[in-house]
Amino acid sequence: MKVLITGGAGFLGTRLARTLLSRGHLSGHPVTQLVLADLAPPATDVASDGRVQARTGALLDQCKSLGGETFDLVFHLASAVSAECEADLDLGLRSNLDTTRALLDGFRSRGTRLVFSSSVAVFGGDDDLPMPRVIHDDTLPVPQTSYGIQKFICEQLIADYSRRGLLDGRSVRLMTVTVRPGRPNAAASGFLSSIIREPLNGQEAVCPVPTNTLVALASPQRTIEGLIVAAEATADAWGSRTAVNLPALTLRVGEMLDALEIAAGRATRDRVRFQQDPTISRMMLGWPAAFESARARRLGLSPDPDFLSIVRQYQKEQAG
Amino acid sequence: MKVLITGGAGFLGTRLARTLLSRGHLSGHPVTQLVLADLAPPATDVASDGRVQARTGALLDQCKSLGGETFDLVFHLASAVSAECEADLDLGLRSNLDTTRALLDGFRSRGTRLVFSSSVAVFGGDDDLPMPRVIHDDTLPVPQTSYGIQKFICEQLIADYSRRGLLDGRSVRLMTVTVRPGRPNAAASGFLSSIIREPLNGQEAVCPVPTNTLVALASPQRTIEGLIVAAEATADAWGSRTAVNLPALTLRVGEMLDALEIAAGRATRDRVRFQQDPTISRMMLGWPAAFESARARRLGLSPDPDFLSIVRQYQKEQAG
Repeated sequence: MKVLITGGAGFLGTRLARTLLSRGHLSGHPVTQLVLADLAPPATDVASDGRVQARTGALLDQCKSLGGETFDLVFHLASAVSAECEADLDLGLRSNLDTTRALLDGFRSRGTRLVFSSSVAVFGGDDDLPMPRVIHDDTLPVPQTSYGIQKFICEQLIADYSRRGLLDGRSVRLMTVTVRPGRPNAAASGFLSSIIREPLNGQEAVCPVPTNTLVALASPQRTIEGLIVAAEATADAWGSRTAVNLPALTLRVGEMLDALEIAAGRATRDRVRFQQDPTISRMMLGWPAAFESARARRLGLSPDPDFLSIVRQYQKEQAG
Repeated sequence: MKVLITGGAGFLGTRLARTLLSRGHLSGHPVTQLVLADLAPPATDVASDGRVQARTGALLDQCKSLGGETFDLVFHLASAVSAECEADLDLGLRSNLDTTRALLDGFRSRGTRLVFSSSVAVFGGDDDLPMPRVIHDDTLPVPQTSYGIQKFICEQLIADYSRRGLLDGRSVRLMTVTVRPGRPNAAASGFLSSIIREPLNGQEAVCPVPTNTLVALASPQRTIEGLIVAAEATADAWGSRTAVNLPALTLRVGEMLDALEIAAGRATRDRVRFQQDPTISRMMLGWPAAFESARARRLGLSPDPDFLSIVRQYQKEQAG
């Protein structure tokens, strides 16, 4: 089968590509071609695989030519991130809304299965309509960021194109993924990786929120598992065309640091400095921290068991 | 104050224009200019008022020039209707989504108050996520028509532009409005007017759904009242940036015909013939019929007391 990953050179795209190439199959069919569309070229190890083709450039400009090809499966991961979208409304509308719509139109009428990475950021509340403490599959998203609004709009378009039979779309809402390797990105949630990654690397990190802040997290491994289960599920198992909330591990930022201390010692933990950032604190407090992800559980997905296992997964991968 | 009504020559737009001209004020300020944008010219009586200016043409083409003017208030009612959007996805995306976005961008950064007519059609359910029997203000919309999807997307854009302070947007979800005068339109719900209007006019009408079908209705008068209350409410009274469900009178189609018989006699009722239309039945059964509209009630709005009063309101207006 021929698979497309948009955002295929990003952190999750690269990891998904490596996973697909190493599994070699999806739903029992061999992955014979893997096309990675991104602004940046793919990682060297990925690019060197004979099954991989890179399409480098702005996705919006590529949608028409990609639509001229036949894919058996599309993972649509490309996105501008939360802080970018908050800083520049037009950038977010173009990168997230217009690009997704152009991609859907490119594949329109093919019935192509398309897995869309939506986000926990669709959830929120305001003074009049506070967010429930536990998010269920039928909780009303009340996004409080432009990023969340744009993701939620894309979910709606994908549901409608799917209802009309133009696509077979599946939206999954990703939790905050940690620990991300590499350099910080412009996501407001970036500190949830950097407060672990930088200390493990001998560097200082800044935590912009109080230690008692509740967060909903998932490891890279579980996140990729969620995307693959969405791609492989039968229509009956998948069910509603509304988005599926992936499972989340709920904990406090202080508990993340406790796990860091257990894994790497007190001196490592002490490399984290607290300096509150009101903008990030406000955004994070507005995001949900507890989920009852019944649909995800029925699909066989479960949250990471604890944060220590996430830290150790990261340490092992960095060492290996 | 200078007021814009998009769809200002449509049924609701014309009625809203007449109401504003006759009241003469909004929030205590005199309505000095009323601009009506529509594909069609305004009704003669409206156009002859010295305060009225018509802007005739496709709204999408007018958004830029309208954005060059300063309005104190915008009612955005222009829309392609449900059956059109179901028949032609691109027409709906252009008329509803692209046009609304262009209008919002036209007024961006002015903080202009904008009342958007969304629709009960945002609600729905599927096999996996059935619609609750009673819709509350925080019920998750799961639209099952392209029209409902497009209205829900516009609500999201308006909420985000408002959160960012670019606009002061207020989305109200209109119930099915009946009795509409004139000729049938392409809305799937059109029969809810024609089964009353045509018999009263001595003509036959076709009812495409069974008599036990539950529907949620509002008179033209109450609907206009809802739009005006949305325009006049203080920010505190309005509350959440999510849409407000207007109040609805819940009843069965058979009860509508009982009211017709009380108002106009058995012979009039007998002009309604039953011929089931599977497409319309399916769409109608997918729409909600009962609402607990707490926010609307707090704003002082209430449903019509009964359907007989709606029939008599229509008879009186046709006579007068």
